[in-house]
This record gives sequence, structure tokens and C-alpha cells, in this order.
Amino acid sequence: MARIVQKYGGTSVGDVERIKKVAERVKLTRDDGNEVVVVVSARSGVTNELIARAKAISDAPSEREMDMLLAVGEQETIALTAMALHALGVPAVSFTGAQAGILTNDAHTRAKIQTITPKQIEEALKQDKVVIVAGFQGINAAGQLTTLGRGGSDLTAIALAAPLKADKCEIYTDVDGVYTADPRIVKTAQKIDEISYDEMLELASSGSKVMQSRSVEFAKKYGVVFEVRSSFNHNPGTIVKEEVSYMEKVVVRGVAVDKDQAKVTVSNIADKPGSAAKVFRALADANVIVDMIVQNVGRNGVANLSFTVPQVDSKKAQQTLAPVLVEIGGGNVTIQEDIAKLSVVGVGMKTHSGVAATLFQTLADANVNIDMITTSEIKISVVISSERVDEAARIAHKVFGLDA
Amino acid sequence: MARIVQKYGGTSVGDVERIKKVAERVKLTRDDGNEVVVVVSARSGVTNELIARAKAISDAPSEREMDMLLAVGEQETIALTAMALHALGVPAVSFTGAQAGILTNDAHTRAKIQTITPKQIEEALKQDKVVIVAGFQGINAAGQLTTLGRGGSDLTAIALAAPLKADKCEIYTDVDGVYTADPRIVKTAQKIDEISYDEMLELASSGSKVMQSRSVEFAKKYGVVFEVRSSFNHNPGTIVKEEVSYMEKVVVRGVAVDKDQAKVTVSNIADKPGSAAKVFRALADANVIVDMIVQNVGRNGVANLSFTVPQVDSKKAQQTLAPVLVEIGGGNVTIQEDIAKLSVVGVGMKTHSGVAATLFQTLADANVNIDMITTSEIKISVVISSERVDEAARIAHKVFGLDA
Repeated sequence: MARIVQKYGGTSVGDVERIKKVAERVKLTRDDGNEVVVVVSARSGVTNELIARAKAISDAPSEREMDMLLAVGEQETIALTAMALHALGVPAVSFTGAQAGILTNDAHTRAKIQTITPKQIEEALKQDKVVIVAGFQGINAAGQLTTLGRGGSDLTAIALAAPLKADKCEIYTDVDGVYTADPRIVKTAQKIDEISYDEMLELASSGSKVMQSRSVEFAKKYGVVFEVRSSFNHNPGTIVKEEVSYMEKVVVRGVAVDKDQAKVTVSNIADKPGSAAKVFRALADANVIVDMIVQNVGRNGVANLSFTVPQVDSKKAQQTLAPVLVEIGGGNVTIQEDIAKLSVVGVGMKTHSGVAATLFQTLADANVNIDMITTSEIKISVVISSERVDEAARIAHKVFGLDA
Repeated sequence: MARIVQKYGGTSVGDVERIKKVAERVKLTRDDGNEVVVVVSARSGVTNELIARAKAISDAPSEREMDMLLAVGEQETIALTAMALHALGVPAVSFTGAQAGILTNDAHTRAKIQTITPKQIEEALKQDKVVIVAGFQGINAAGQLTTLGRGGSDLTAIALAAPLKADKCEIYTDVDGVYTADPRIVKTAQKIDEISYDEMLELASSGSKVMQSRSVEFAKKYGVVFEVRSSFNHNPGTIVKEEVSYMEKVVVRGVAVDKDQAKVTVSNIADKPGSAAKVFRALADANVIVDMIVQNVGRNGVANLSFTVPQVDSKKAQQTLAPVLVEIGGGNVTIQEDIAKLSVVGVGMKTHSGVAATLFQTLADANVNIDMITTSEIKISVVISSERVDEAARIAHKVFGLDA
């Protein structure tokens, strides 16, 4: 007998018929002799409906009340999922985040999990019940409902797997797993059987949308092995863990494209100590997340500073910097939105040199101009024209032997 | 400064615009220097949608999970109402039934309130906040969500008013108050300014749909004075309390019509001890609520037994009685649905004789045949043809001086 945590996202529980399908899958897992804890999201669309109602009432609704409101979505799904299991003759009980013992800090709408005391879950499992837990939510020490922010239901599942000492944690979604590239861009993309936490993290931060980084970080921290797989078929998915068998052999594990980037250039600023610090301090204070940074010192003691931000934040960056430029003695801000980021990721890069050279040469051969570059131990990212990025992804996918 | 509990029903918070109107009304009350605790229902229609989803999954959904599901409706409304108050600059905080300290027994979907410990409410009021409480719900000793059944939000408001020592409890609904008769039937019906608990209870049990009996019973038990009034205007409503000023003067306070009745006749049963007991024991076991009962002993030692039940239960009554008739030695069951109940109610009847005689004579003069009769200290009910009942109500309304 194994203990399995399964998480089903909003699409998987999107309506009554899909909830019944989830119940059937849970029943199969239980019929194999396993203990099952199921974490569910709100039905897809429900959270957006609730947000729309809140926005119709207030431009800036209280975060405490947003949590009270949004917690409703998952509470509906857990009850319906439990009923669907009952209808199949499977004993089941649903718990809110609070009942599941998920204690968070006070940061409403983006709470962090502090401790999990799954006492009621353990008792229900002992009574041979399937346990359904509301994802995305918890309770703070003062007894107020909190929500965990984006990707919160994945986090609930992974965070529960640790204290429950689950043998498996399965994240069900609408894709078959993690791919070597986005199959919509690179037709030859392959599903990855196993991937390390670090590679998964770099892929997530490079525009791969399978999971939020924070859930993967949590899994890495607590050593929770999990599998990303589809709720619409029975294909094996991608297993995410610390050490994976191919590590020594495969250099590049995946290629990611992020088109949601804008390049901000601050030109003609005085090249004196502290200018760059003031620029990035102001952006940090305005909650603008800066990704890649390049600084060039030009002639006449003036410097140019370029960096990338999410496209949605480019105007905010420009507004934030206007008073800073006055303070540091002038300069101009320009924004370029026709750029994209291409990343190649692989833990094998730690021990294999030449990946960067190969990437740059390959792009040069294809006449793709590289605008900015950053590297980490296991990732190389380049900023190139958004018009050429799909083609560049296909070329990189091929040159690093990912085509199959 | 007074402390006021206000309850707004599902129609009053039916959509975002109406929730904003409720917030404006609450603000007015608070601007007058009052402490305000607001109890809200789910948006009208939401509870039925949730029930429909549950029924699409299971014919007989678990009551524990139904409560988990249904509690969602009010939780949404409290959050939106708090946001609407914030948008008007009014400090406000929302609480679920559990957070409001409403402890119930374990009877899921029809839980009874056991104790209320409104600690969080008192603290929030001290902080000068308006408190919004989810009606209809509570929590049991095991920490499971429970709901209070029909009329539950009225009950929440009245039950909170007692431990909070509220100076006023206002039940906002879509009618102006309690009327001497249903204005759709009796055009000359008058709004009643004050009514006693007992009269309100008799009217409720006689088909007047303003409130469920259990809330009025609770108010009577704990001496909670409340006012039934409209959320769509600022007219004064009807105050419900123990002793009302007109008690000695007014004999009949209202006329009620209940068309949702069926008459069941069990004929030709052996007139021997225990037959009637067996009939009513079987009906009670089947949860069929019997209202009026008449027994006639005919010739040849056979008896006829007639009683009224809600129309929805008439078929169930017939099925339940089939085996009983076999057991007691034969008889027939017939059902008549073209009947209705007319009731006249008034505490003044305790000390005034002749009300029954006046009613019977008046109906006789109008050629309305009386089929069954029951009386209590403050009510006389008659079963007559449903075709004639509206006319009879108008006649009774006039003869007892209620026309103005």
C-alpha cells in the first residue's frame, strides 16, 4: 500500500462531468490498494468570475476580503468531488485548507505556508477514506482565511506530501508532462521522463508555464518527488526529483521561449558610482521585476543601461524612472517590445563546456542577432528579435540533440 | 448609540448593484452613530445552482458535503458586502458562521444552534468596524461546517441579537412588513405596525410566508424584539415582540390563506381503539406533517378519518397508508387537492368570545361550505374549497374590521 497525493487543476474539475471523471481516476488509484489524498482547484473560470464581481464593487478590494471571497471556489469543488466519490461507493471526506491544518503567515492573497498539521487528514485516512483538500488556501494564526497566490493548489499538494510522508505526489494538469520545448513552437519536442528540480526551476523562470517556481522550490527544499501528468489520459508524465539518471549524459534538457518580455534602455546617464543602484532600487520599490541586465559605458563619461522586464510592467518602469533620471542628472528611457528570450537549460552544462559557444555560433549561422546574454550554472539565455525566436528555438532544439 | 443587527435576504443582495445599495443603507445606520452587525444570505439563485450541481453528481448527496457546498453562497456575499462598505469608506470585516462563534449540533443541513460566542464580533465592534456575518451557517463541536436549514439567515440574525444584547434587530426583505392579509388576495390589506410573537407564529403556520416559525420561536424564547421591513424603501416595517399595545382592543389581527394543502380521507376503517394511532404513527415515521384532523364515526362500526397534509406529501401519505389499512382490516384512501385553509389570527381572541361564530356565520351567509375546523387559543382555521378561499379571505378581512 502506498500513500498518494493527487492534485487536479481547474480544467480537470471544470464542470460536473469532469469532476465525475476525476472521481473515477481517484477510485482506480484507491482500488489498487493506495491511500489517496486529493487536492483540487476551483472550477476553471470561477476564480475570475469572483474577481470580476469584486472589481465591480471596488478598484482595490481589501486583500483580507479577497481571500474570504476566493476561498469559496475550492470549497465548492471539494464538496462536489467528495459527492462524486460517494456516488461511486468510495468513502470520502472534504476538508478546507484550515481543516487540513495548513497554517500560513498573514500575507493575504499571497500567504506563505508556515506549518502543516494534517491531524484530521491522518484520522480520515485511518478510517479508510479518500481525503479531498481545498487547494490554494490556508488559515493564519488569528483564524483568518488566507490564499497562497498563483500556483497555490500545486503548492498545497506538494506541501501536504511532505508531512504526510506520501510515497507519490501527482500533479494532474491538461498537458502530458514537461517537454523539451513548447510543442506548439517546436514540433519535434519530446516529453521528458525525468527532470531535476533545478532544471524545472530554470525552465519555469524561462517562460515554461507548466508550474510556478515556488512549488518546485518547495519540493526541492523538502525533497518531495512529484510527477506532472495529464488528467485526460493515462500516459506516464514527467517525474521531478533531485538526481536524475541521465544527468551525466545529457547536456541540454530543454529549450524555453519567453515572449512576454520588454527591453528597457536607459541611455546617456552619467557614468558615476550609484547611478545604476538608484535605477534598480526605484524599480524594486515599485515591484518591477528585472530579469537580464547589460551596462555599456560609452564615450564622454556617459553610460547606457539595458534590462528586461515583463511586458506588463514596461510602462510602470518608464514612469518610475522619470524622477530618478532627474535626480541622477539626465538621461532617456526607451522601451522595445519586439524582443523575446530564448533559454537552453540542463544540469549537464555544469560539467560540459562549450554550450554557450555552440548556441551563439548556431544563431550566428542562422543570422539571428543576439542582443543580451545571461548565464547561470545550468542555463544560458539570450534576448533576440521576437520575430525570429520560434525559428531560433527549433534550431537550438535540433543542435543540442533534443529532436529525439 | 445603539447596537443594531440587520439581516438582508438573497433578493436584497442578489447582484453587485444591490450589494452596493445594502452597503449604503448600512452606512446610513452607522452614520447615525450606531454599531451595526449585518447578516447576509447567499445571492438569490446561488443556493439553487449549487444544489443543482450536487444533484447532477448524486441523487442523495452526503449532508455533510452539502453543508460544505452550501456554506459557499453566504461566504461570497459577506466578502462582497465588506468590500462594498470599504468602497464607501466604512471600516468593515466579514466573518463566517464559525468565526462568528455560532456553534451548532451535528445535524447537517438542519443544524440547531447550541451556543453563540461572538468574541470576534465584539472585538471588531470595539474597533469601530461594521461586522458582516454569513447567515445560515455554523460549525459543530468537531469543527465541521453546518447549515441551519430553511430560514437559517433570519435565525442567525435573531440568534446573534440575543448574546450581542442588540437594541434592535431588523429583518430586511422584499416586502414592507407583515400584512393583515396577502395584498395580492385582499386589496384592502393593511400593514401591521406591531404584532406579538404568538400571532406571528400562527400566521406563519397558516401560510403567511414572511418568516419561518423557528426564527420567531427563537425570538420569543429569548425575548428578541425584531422588525420586518423592506430593503427597497425606508418605510417603517412591522415590529414583532411579546406584548403589543393594541392587544386588548383588536380581536383579529390577520387573515391567512394556505392553498398548499391536500385533504386525505381514510374511509370505512374499523372503529376500534388504535386504528387512528396506527395511521398517524405511520405518517409520522414517514415524515408527513399532518395539520388538521377530523374523525367521524359512521354507522355499522366503521369510521372516517380526514386530515390535511402539504400537497407535496399527499402521494407519500397514500403510499404510506396502504400497508397500514391492510393491517387494521381494510379501508380506502382518497385525496382531495381542491381545498385550502383560511385562518383568522389574533391574541385578542383569548378574551373575546364569538369570533368563531362570526366567522362561520359570515361564510354561511356567503354560501361557503366549511369542510374542517380547528382552533387554538388565538387562531381559527377552516378548510374550504380552494375556488372560494380568496373571496372568503376578503369577506373575513372585512367582517373583522381589518379593511382600514
